[in-house]
Amino acid sequence: MNYRFISYIVGWILNFQGIFLIIPSFVALYYGEDSGFAYVVTSIICLAIGVALTLKKPSNKAFYAKDGFISVAACWIVLSITGALPFVFNGEIPSIVDAMFETISGFTTTGATILSDVEALSKCNLFWRSFTHWIGGMGVLVFVLCILPLAGGDNMHLLKAESPGPSVNKLVPRVRDTALILYGIYIFLTIIEVVLLLISGMTAFDALTTSFGTAGTGGFGIKNNSMADYSVAIQNIVGVFMMLFGVNFSIYFLLLVRKPKQILKSEELRVYVGIIAISTIVIGINIRGSFPSIWSALQQAFFQVSSVITTTGFATVDFNLWPSLSKSVLILLMFVGACAGSTGGGIKVSRIVILWKDIKNELAAYMHPRSVRTVRIEGKKVNNEIVNSVKTYISLYLVIFISSVLLISFENYSFETNFTAVAATLNNVGPGFDGVGPMENFAKYNSFSKYILMFDMLAGRLELIPMVIIFNPSVWKIRGKRLFS
Amino acid sequence: MNYRFISYIVGWILNFQGIFLIIPSFVALYYGEDSGFAYVVTSIICLAIGVALTLKKPSNKAFYAKDGFISVAACWIVLSITGALPFVFNGEIPSIVDAMFETISGFTTTGATILSDVEALSKCNLFWRSFTHWIGGMGVLVFVLCILPLAGGDNMHLLKAESPGPSVNKLVPRVRDTALILYGIYIFLTIIEVVLLLISGMTAFDALTTSFGTAGTGGFGIKNNSMADYSVAIQNIVGVFMMLFGVNFSIYFLLLVRKPKQILKSEELRVYVGIIAISTIVIGINIRGSFPSIWSALQQAFFQVSSVITTTGFATVDFNLWPSLSKSVLILLMFVGACAGSTGGGIKVSRIVILWKDIKNELAAYMHPRSVRTVRIEGKKVNNEIVNSVKTYISLYLVIFISSVLLISFENYSFETNFTAVAATLNNVGPGFDGVGPMENFAKYNSFSKYILMFDMLAGRLELIPMVIIFNPSVWKIRGKRLFS
Repeated sequence: MNYRFISYIVGWILNFQGIFLIIPSFVALYYGEDSGFAYVVTSIICLAIGVALTLKKPSNKAFYAKDGFISVAACWIVLSITGALPFVFNGEIPSIVDAMFETISGFTTTGATILSDVEALSKCNLFWRSFTHWIGGMGVLVFVLCILPLAGGDNMHLLKAESPGPSVNKLVPRVRDTALILYGIYIFLTIIEVVLLLISGMTAFDALTTSFGTAGTGGFGIKNNSMADYSVAIQNIVGVFMMLFGVNFSIYFLLLVRKPKQILKSEELRVYVGIIAISTIVIGINIRGSFPSIWSALQQAFFQVSSVITTTGFATVDFNLWPSLSKSVLILLMFVGACAGSTGGGIKVSRIVILWKDIKNELAAYMHPRSVRTVRIEGKKVNNEIVNSVKTYISLYLVIFISSVLLISFENYSFETNFTAVAATLNNVGPGFDGVGPMENFAKYNSFSKYILMFDMLAGRLELIPMVIIFNPSVWKIRGKRLFS
Repeated sequence: MNYRFISYIVGWILNFQGIFLIIPSFVALYYGEDSGFAYVVTSIICLAIGVALTLKKPSNKAFYAKDGFISVAACWIVLSITGALPFVFNGEIPSIVDAMFETISGFTTTGATILSDVEALSKCNLFWRSFTHWIGGMGVLVFVLCILPLAGGDNMHLLKAESPGPSVNKLVPRVRDTALILYGIYIFLTIIEVVLLLISGMTAFDALTTSFGTAGTGGFGIKNNSMADYSVAIQNIVGVFMMLFGVNFSIYFLLLVRKPKQILKSEELRVYVGIIAISTIVIGINIRGSFPSIWSALQQAFFQVSSVITTTGFATVDFNLWPSLSKSVLILLMFVGACAGSTGGGIKVSRIVILWKDIKNELAAYMHPRSVRTVRIEGKKVNNEIVNSVKTYISLYLVIFISSVLLISFENYSFETNFTAVAATLNNVGPGFDGVGPMENFAKYNSFSKYILMFDMLAGRLELIPMVIIFNPSVWKIRGKRLFS
């Protein structure tokens, strides 16, 4: 294990965190809030440690796959701990466990909160909460590694570890350029949303924080009832943008290079849009009785469907009160999640598509054992390694899911509460149902359960493997493939 | 598709059903119940159709894998429909849907009931309900095929389709002899349980029906509160025998041929006993407050654990009222299920063991991509085909599970009710939680939901594939492997 190199990477992450933390202090300055001082202090702490760790470039550059996974996990844990300090320092979330829960929920774009009254927070804290969504949405490690080419090597494995989905497409030959294009698209889409929200009458603060939450598919609201009090126009803009940020970003790259025909061919996109359309119609019909017209029922259904499938977690109504069918559909969507290569969480549409095709193949094989089984997506053969890794992902996912439900069941909440609390955190959605419904919060859980749910949020965001490896030292001993040196 | 041959097999199943149906009519004769006449009528119907279908041996003996799967599914559906007729004819379960639900629940050894007052049934109906568990436990099709060697061919595929678990061990070279040994063990163990229950003071009727329910891991009670009113001695005998019937029967064969050392080597057995022990201790400690001593808490915990992991479904207490941790453990055990090659349902311990080892391999492979991945059970390499089929089984299982929960969610019951209703039927357990808890029943569901749950019970008992194939005609068109001709 190359501890020196890992701490060098962690050091750079701390430097960037130090810079990020300056921004909320400006917000505090603008609103005249004393609580902003905590951000200056934390920033200095981060920069002090960060600079110390990065003063000298490590000489031993042997870097293995396991080092990559451990770096990713370590960076995210460090981001979460340092990001929680301002809340503790300015006393608005005095418990360090709660502050960490809130920050991990932010960076992992989950949006689950321990606060019952978010409106009581000062503006700089509200801004930082939403800003962590935006940082976490695209991931910061790859960004850092692109800016400082550490060894000129191929950072594909780090990109893979940090970006969601079963496989990563290189859009252009160099990983660094691919990453920069993706960040460009991300920033561009965020700006458009901010502009549209401003035009629709939102204040600049609301427009920025809401757009951060949408872009990262995070879902922290700045109001106690999430998006319920905003106009239908604003709700619809957010609803559509949540859906857009749940799309594989390579689709926007195809738009950029003017290949719209290839977009229509994308199977994942078609399935994604299909699931959203069908779910919206089913729920719209199911809840029509509670709304003045079928159109407003469909509008509300679309917002929650878009929010849940992209694992954002904004809400315009308390969908915990909806009938069983609508609730079951939403619970299912929590697991499905968004497209690979988007900022959304969950299992991902592409994994579901691969699994579905694999099941069909295997059923055919029962009939004809010598048949050739290949999963094809958009006519192209999917590597058996990927199919296999998808199946392992599901198994590992189930192990983590079930263990988490068991571990938080020491607390005597309803099965629906505990089950959807894990579903909401492991899939990075945010709100669940019953005791953790959209108008409830996670404060009720004790510290032990909160740590379990924090693990789930990080495991969900980093696609399980890095978190499993960092908490399983026996894996560290395996001498693996050298990534770069 | 060889319709002629399939109907010939179905015909023989009807002949045997005709013979089985005579037995409850003798029970009625003994107790002087008029309702027994319905069994005579149904028996005559079965024999009339059965004899007509089996009069002439089919000349075309080409029999493919798909014909095998469809035969198995068709036989079980025919058994369920004809087995339901007596309840309708004697008017004690007038609705044909309800009667079919009860009979499928019986043959599939589920034990989920639509009756709120089982004690109101006449003795012959109670006997038939429990007897269907015993018939369904080991499966009847293989029995029939062993008695009439149809083509002298290898019936391995039919044995596979009807017996639970990822792979079937031939105990002796010939499938027929293997099957006869298994039925011998089954009958022998049942007789021991009956004798022990008689010694403990049960009436002959109670001892017989309870033993049928235990042996088949079915769980239909003959009392409204299941096993709650029986003595602790009786509860313990039933608790231990449920556990014994959840063991892979090849273990008893090893006892028979005096190879006890090999028994200790069985990984599945060790894991199975380990899960039971840990679950019993965890639940015992969790519920100790409601019982006079830790011993009585452990005794109650053991009974429910043994009942749920073997998917029997007997209950001595209303475990729906237990704290969340105990409920979560029991819900998990519903999915784990018993050992392969036992009469129990669920996913099976051996599949869980294979999945677990595969996950460990895959995690190692992330570190070292060129490592050789082989799953070993008891030191022996598990065929990759089997590992793959286990993963596909889990995927298919999830698809059926999720679809069923969605489809029965049209009815506005709690998430816990609908979720555990599907878990209880697909895993052939019987009772679930909340609205389908051990002191509740399935009568609340409408016919549509009942059909979904009936499908789940059959799919669970036949390990998914036959039921998926018979309801998916597109699969029929595939020309598969010839089984025998």
